Amino acid sequence: MSLTVYRKAHFNAAHRLFREDWSDAKNSQIFGKCSNPNYHGHNYELEVGITGDIDAETGFLIDLKILKDVIYEEVEIPFDHKNLNVEVEAFKNINPTVENIAIEIYNRLTSRLDNRYKVTVKLYETPRNFVVYTG
Amino acid sequence: MSLTVYRKAHFNAAHRLFREDWSDAKNSQIFGKCSNPNYHGHNYELEVGITGDIDAETGFLIDLKILKDVIYEEVEIPFDHKNLNVEVEAFKNINPTVENIAIEIYNRLTSRLDNRYKVTVKLYETPRNFVVYTG
Amino acid sequence: MSLTVYRKAHFNAAHRLFREDWSDAKNSQIFGKCSNPNYHGHNYELEVGITGDIDAETGFLIDLKILKDVIYEEVEIPFDHKNLNVEVEAFKNINPTVENIAIEIYNRLTSRLDNRYKVTVKLYETPRNFVVYTG
Amino acid sequence: MSLTVYRKAHFNAAHRLFREDWSDAKNSQIFGKCSNPNYHGHNYELEVGITGDIDAETGFLIDLKILKDVIYEEVEIPFDHKNLNVEVEAFKNINPTVENIAIEIYNRLTSRLDNRYKVTVKLYETPRNFVVYTG
Amino acid sequence: MSLTVYRKAHFNAAHRLFREDWSDAKNSQIFGKCSNPNYHGHNYELEVGITGDIDAETGFLIDLKILKDVIYEEVEIPFDHKNLNVEVEAFKNINPTVENIAIEIYNRLTSRLDNRYKVTVKLYETPRNFVVYTG
Amino acid sequence: MSLTVYRKAHFNAAHRLFREDWSDAKNSQIFGKCSNPNYHGHNYELEVGITGDIDAETGFLIDLKILKDVIYEEVEIPFDHKNLNVEVEAFKNINPTVENIAIEIYNRLTSRLDNRYKVTVKLYETPRNFVVYTG
Repeated sequence: MSLTVYRKAHFNAAHRLFREDWSDAKNSQIFGKCSNPNYHGHNYELEVGITGDIDAETGFLIDLKILKDVIYEEVEIPFDHKNLNVEVEAFKNINPTVENIAIEIYNRLTSRLDNRYKVTVKLYETPRNFVVYTG
Repeated sequence: MSLTVYRKAHFNAAHRLFREDWSDAKNSQIFGKCSNPNYHGHNYELEVGITGDIDAETGFLIDLKILKDVIYEEVEIPFDHKNLNVEVEAFKNINPTVENIAIEIYNRLTSRLDNRYKVTVKLYETPRNFVVYTG
Repeated sequence: MSLTVYRKAHFNAAHRLFREDWSDAKNSQIFGKCSNPNYHGHNYELEVGITGDIDAETGFLIDLKILKDVIYEEVEIPFDHKNLNVEVEAFKNINPTVENIAIEIYNRLTSRLDNRYKVTVKLYETPRNFVVYTG
Repeated sequence: MSLTVYRKAHFNAAHRLFREDWSDAKNSQIFGKCSNPNYHGHNYELEVGITGDIDAETGFLIDLKILKDVIYEEVEIPFDHKNLNVEVEAFKNINPTVENIAIEIYNRLTSRLDNRYKVTVKLYETPRNFVVYTG
Repeated sequence: MSLTVYRKAHFNAAHRLFREDWSDAKNSQIFGKCSNPNYHGHNYELEVGITGDIDAETGFLIDLKILKDVIYEEVEIPFDHKNLNVEVEAFKNINPTVENIAIEIYNRLTSRLDNRYKVTVKLYETPRNFVVYTG
Repeated sequence: MSLTVYRKAHFNAAHRLFREDWSDAKNSQIFGKCSNPNYHGHNYELEVGITGDIDAETGFLIDLKILKDVIYEEVEIPFDHKNLNVEVEAFKNINPTVENIAIEIYNRLTSRLDNRYKVTVKLYETPRNFVVYTG
């Protein structure tokens, strides 16, 4: 038996994909128009899943007010209306691909949530392109 | 290998979250505006997943007409346009949180379906708040 | 030429449809299960459209922060997690049909917004049932 | 830990469900209006999930340009704007139920993709009826 | 002031676009893969809008049970799980483009509804391609 | 009577809102986090509506292949994966608000389409914030 509660959030950010140690030609070949040096951006839509046991007293798996605050502090404040490459420490050395952003969000959330919860991060970069990362 | 077929349904219902053995102050602190004594309500959107083996003769995992009837009898008839606290026996003693409603739906469906099927219940309380319960 | 900016909001509420001056039988015949005396409820999804002229200096038609505050004060605060029949004055004497709720929202918003704007209210009672009211 | 990247695609096709070795009466009883001899059709919406390890150099799990080409060649070209019963070899002897179409897509994709990937196929026959097939 | 109530419905059908008086080459040039002689198909999603005056007694613009029955009889029964070219009289001589299907639905609905209503037909051939026809 | 055909497209871009002739404090007061000098970005979803007369011979209002090419050349090529402030001439002197982007798209499309068509541009900056511009 498994019970998971999901909460949605979203942030709008600029990014680009490139490696400093690669030539412009190689960046363009591998990352295509995503490597535009002037940046482009996305509306990232996030679904955080928390798997755990129900609290018999309240009927809640988790107090969503706490989860909401953790997502706000760990994801929305640092990522929303930001340039991910320039303003988020984690992406100064690794590419802000949707895969890496999902993993970073997972790491931030699990550092704050009780480890009795299993956390799942579903992140849409566009309505047509998304990832699921599960610990 | 795993094959799951999903069918959607929906119901509109009133509910409130509270415990009779708690003070009004404590109900308000834990359940917030969800504890309004006059009730509020939701459009619950339901996705029922049935995992099993394909029938080689028909190419169906399950006869969806049977599944449709079971969902109608076990969920839509008793829950749609109802007050969950007042009119559904299961929620007279436990809170109709989205977690508990999903578990109740799961129990109702599995009591009627062949136990060779694994059943998954995904229940949206709002487009932004949902649970998945898997047996 | 016509330019309209839209902003979404939502509220979850309980209601019932009935007339006190009608018999139970007539209420049931006209309003069906919507007349359940114990109430049922919906997730109302609202899209407010503001038609007007663009401000050449900012490139905005309206300051969305102001619109957001007006919607919050006039719709979300009084309607969200409420019983519309019991707790909203306007629906003590008229039925809270989706038509009447849209008209009430329109009246509340236009009472607060500059009359140089034309206001449109699109209100979903369910994902399958909605109205548009335009002044 | 598990990371899955999803890509969407779609195709519009005609089909019917029936068995040649059954009487018209039995086909009609089991498959209902889906057995109409003149065919009907659907907008199939496809989500292909690829589970695997991230490439530390690029931050990609898979080069989506390659995945896009494989889906185009193996699914869109042979299925889009086609009559599945008449024009797709696999469905000359088995019924093109949404279950069987998902399995056929899975087999086509895995025959082309590196077997270090786990592949998941989610296929919507309608917005209300869909399957998930996982290898 | 204008008030419109919308109701959704859907049907799944096969069709093809072609003119008998054109060569295969010209049909293919103008209609592309939509002219496949073996047909293809779509999930058509329909939104019917009824503009009119509110009934002060009920708070309804129209009795939706009546509208639902009219849509069922005039659209769902004749179109759902059908081959539009072969089984719908109107499309024996004109092409079942999404434009012509919307006009045919409009004509069928207005022949049944009181002419005090203005009728709008929004018809999705795919989630990405749709028309609006207003009388 | 009015018939409109819609086609969807999308582009992902970076932008910021600010006026060079304003102080940082005033930009921040009016444009809030949208004025971040490092840019942020969005998935813009576009619906182009073409109102006109049906061609009796084909049953089409417009050849969608032509419309598709015009949208691709006038919107997707110049805007997709671009920084709107830096790389689109029109936004060097006016703010790329969703209002102004919609007007720019309208001007680009009407410069290419036959003036017998009325053009409508619906542009989503986020799923929750959008405009409609009609000529």
